[in-house]
Amino acid sequence: MKENKVSDKRRDLSKVMPTVVQRIITSCSMEKCFQHLDATPIPARDAVAGAIQHARRLLFPGYFTQSVLASSNLEYCLKKDMTALYNALVKQIIFTAQHDCMRLEQFCVQCEESSRTKALQFIQALPNLREVLATDVYAAMEGDPAAKSFDEVITSYPGLFAITVQRLAHVLYKLKVPQLPRAMTEYAHSFTGIDIHPGARIGNSFFIDHGTGVVIGETTEIGHRVRLYQGVTLGALSMPKEAVERFRDKKRHPTIEDDVIIYSNTTILGGDTVIGARSTIGGNAWITESVPPDTKVYLKKPELIYSASGRRSPSEKHKNKMMFRFKGKRNAAGSYS
Amino acid sequence: MKENKVSDKRRDLSKVMPTVVQRIITSCSMEKCFQHLDATPIPARDAVAGAIQHARRLLFPGYFTQSVLASSNLEYCLKKDMTALYNALVKQIIFTAQHDCMRLEQFCVQCEESSRTKALQFIQALPNLREVLATDVYAAMEGDPAAKSFDEVITSYPGLFAITVQRLAHVLYKLKVPQLPRAMTEYAHSFTGIDIHPGARIGNSFFIDHGTGVVIGETTEIGHRVRLYQGVTLGALSMPKEAVERFRDKKRHPTIEDDVIIYSNTTILGGDTVIGARSTIGGNAWITESVPPDTKVYLKKPELIYSASGRRSPSEKHKNKMMFRFKGKRNAAGSYS
Amino acid sequence: MKENKVSDKRRDLSKVMPTVVQRIITSCSMEKCFQHLDATPIPARDAVAGAIQHARRLLFPGYFTQSVLASSNLEYCLKKDMTALYNALVKQIIFTAQHDCMRLEQFCVQCEESSRTKALQFIQALPNLREVLATDVYAAMEGDPAAKSFDEVITSYPGLFAITVQRLAHVLYKLKVPQLPRAMTEYAHSFTGIDIHPGARIGNSFFIDHGTGVVIGETTEIGHRVRLYQGVTLGALSMPKEAVERFRDKKRHPTIEDDVIIYSNTTILGGDTVIGARSTIGGNAWITESVPPDTKVYLKKPELIYSASGRRSPSEKHKNKMMFRFKGKRNAAGSYS
Repeated sequence: MKENKVSDKRRDLSKVMPTVVQRIITSCSMEKCFQHLDATPIPARDAVAGAIQHARRLLFPGYFTQSVLASSNLEYCLKKDMTALYNALVKQIIFTAQHDCMRLEQFCVQCEESSRTKALQFIQALPNLREVLATDVYAAMEGDPAAKSFDEVITSYPGLFAITVQRLAHVLYKLKVPQLPRAMTEYAHSFTGIDIHPGARIGNSFFIDHGTGVVIGETTEIGHRVRLYQGVTLGALSMPKEAVERFRDKKRHPTIEDDVIIYSNTTILGGDTVIGARSTIGGNAWITESVPPDTKVYLKKPELIYSASGRRSPSEKHKNKMMFRFKGKRNAAGSYS
Repeated sequence: MKENKVSDKRRDLSKVMPTVVQRIITSCSMEKCFQHLDATPIPARDAVAGAIQHARRLLFPGYFTQSVLASSNLEYCLKKDMTALYNALVKQIIFTAQHDCMRLEQFCVQCEESSRTKALQFIQALPNLREVLATDVYAAMEGDPAAKSFDEVITSYPGLFAITVQRLAHVLYKLKVPQLPRAMTEYAHSFTGIDIHPGARIGNSFFIDHGTGVVIGETTEIGHRVRLYQGVTLGALSMPKEAVERFRDKKRHPTIEDDVIIYSNTTILGGDTVIGARSTIGGNAWITESVPPDTKVYLKKPELIYSASGRRSPSEKHKNKMMFRFKGKRNAAGSYS
Repeated sequence: MKENKVSDKRRDLSKVMPTVVQRIITSCSMEKCFQHLDATPIPARDAVAGAIQHARRLLFPGYFTQSVLASSNLEYCLKKDMTALYNALVKQIIFTAQHDCMRLEQFCVQCEESSRTKALQFIQALPNLREVLATDVYAAMEGDPAAKSFDEVITSYPGLFAITVQRLAHVLYKLKVPQLPRAMTEYAHSFTGIDIHPGARIGNSFFIDHGTGVVIGETTEIGHRVRLYQGVTLGALSMPKEAVERFRDKKRHPTIEDDVIIYSNTTILGGDTVIGARSTIGGNAWITESVPPDTKVYLKKPELIYSASGRRSPSEKHKNKMMFRFKGKRNAAGSYS
């Protein structure tokens, strides 16, 4: 009896399926914009993750493996990882190039050849990238009193992972590879909560501490030795919907000069906004105008309102066993019980 | 000798283990609340991830595969994914239903049958969901000047992933499937930093940009064409501990009407709070009262305090090679060196 | 012809590779600080993930498996997971210990033995940890009106995952195991957006709701029954670069006493800052001074500026079909159209 019911329901699926499938097919054929049939595949998360992993092994040899990398094997291992990275990249870049040809209804002539050239240019950029990333590792060690060793920074710091991936993606962005750069930075974003657009131009010795919630927009320019904390947004000013198209290729995000520090949860907006060299921006600020060099900018301490919570009577309070180490000064604005 | 020591330590584990295991067992048997022995398994992260992946292939055919999806195969492929999704869902919904029966000490009569019906209702909801998600893709393209193509939005935008999963989970939430909806949105939360409760009711053409830190509570209602940025909270007002039970089924989160834009890191709280249609809420605001339609609300620019940082002498500053493009106006509150 | 071109490009890779590899090798040998050749491997993400998964199965038996855990098998299963956890830990702790010896150029005498002892001490800490985590589960259920069941809290609440991993990592931190503790909390950070340093000391019944963006620094002390919301930072005051070294082992982060609630996006900074027992800190606040016990501290409501957005004429507004449930009071600072 129960068997029958179950098979009834199974029959229901086969009854229901043709209609549901047909409705999806019809709906797909109506939305031309994201028709994706007969199309070259798009870089999958796994492929992107694999390429990033190979690149990290080349940039920090010996760090991302569970077996010992002996000096005597170094050359062999680097060549092996480099070949794997090259092959993976060629495949993905060809995919995205062919895909763009299809999308823009162009005839695809030399996608394969130019993709191979781009993959090669990417490989050739690695030694320089390695040197820039070394400055980022030093910057983390110098900027964070909780950092115990370079190894810890390289293997566990989300900020270093995010900037590593962004620097890799930026090379592809400059080579005008479509889709792949953004897929790479989005992969890092999903791991770290740090969202750096592949287009952003970022100097040496860059350090992001903690990092969750950091957003750095496409046309941001950042100098050398800049330090950011969690929740910092370097973004665009709001614009009316009708202006979005007009701003698509303009500078919309701020410029941060050398040696600037920006504390947590501060928002800096606008393509004309420049934070001058060696300036420090306090936490929680909202800045839409330029700041001259050598300036400290802090939010005027917002007024806090203190009141007794009345959760306990005063006599009970004094019985409070837990040692209370209150050392604060009375706030001008508030009074406490 | 060294061998001996090591085996001593190994013997230590076997000496220590019985006590440790016994203490865990005793402690488990005392906490009835999360006794989970002899119990039906709970949806595992992998099972949840698999169901979401199948559903995405149905909702965006051709996007989430590394091989070409040919038009001629479309029907076959959709049916294959649909059957897999149905089977995975039936299994997980039965698990959660039986689990709830056990937890509530009910006799489990028709869990299996009603679970199959719910899985079927979910499948039937997919074509409509697909159409709603198409409006979300358009909204991202229109709302973000950095968006390069629909493909990029579909494959790389965390906001689209989060709302896709939430819309799927919301169908199951309305069908009163326990646990699974929340497990699904939490999966998306872990990837995107966007935490939308499966209970939230959200209109068409919804766009979240960047998204890290966004929180949308269970009883939130959102109209059509609403746009949010990173760090926006649509939450509940604080309540004393003793009130938590009383509020469990009440509307505790705000209502956002059509065409509203809410900029980054703004917090809007309370079940009676309504943001009227076509209003714009600036960034960093804290709102616990309703806002009428067609209104712009901005935080009064908080006072900033500027001071010379003294990190360099003025004469050195003028030697500063880096071009400084300062265009800001002098802030009434501050003075810079 | 096309074949030829492709093989040309392939030859290009083999032409280019020797130079690129050589440059990387040279650059590696110059940066002694993160030379990582011939070195013991560092805990890989997978190994860390595996250890955490085994520990969760021991701490919440029956929850993290897709098959039924029968009471009759409980002892057997716990022993199996415990042995696996012990072996995984021993391996990783030996790696990190040998690695530190190498890094500090010490002769490695008893790394293996002391690592086994530490792994054993970790195993022995599990029953107590289980009891503390039980109080965290209750705290989540009591603190969140959206929580449906203990099972949902245990399987889907990111805050519980983050504190589980931190409590595990804290045991290893106290045992002075290098690297592994931070790798563990960073794993949890990547899943949850919650960044708790393994050094933080945290009492019972701790609950973090939503959690994305939470940062809790190394020397933070937190009492019992404390509740935090998303975006809360318990951090260090900013310090000049030259002071970083001096502060490396000092208390730099605040003390939060028993029964404190801290609402979303509030920042509390400084090693001398104490938030007294039973106090409540409102959202969005920025606190660098102590707060006495039994106090409510709220940000003075910042002034909001209201203006008509002019997106629609007033007459059109009245035609607005969507019911508008405006109940707000007129804000003293603003006027609406």
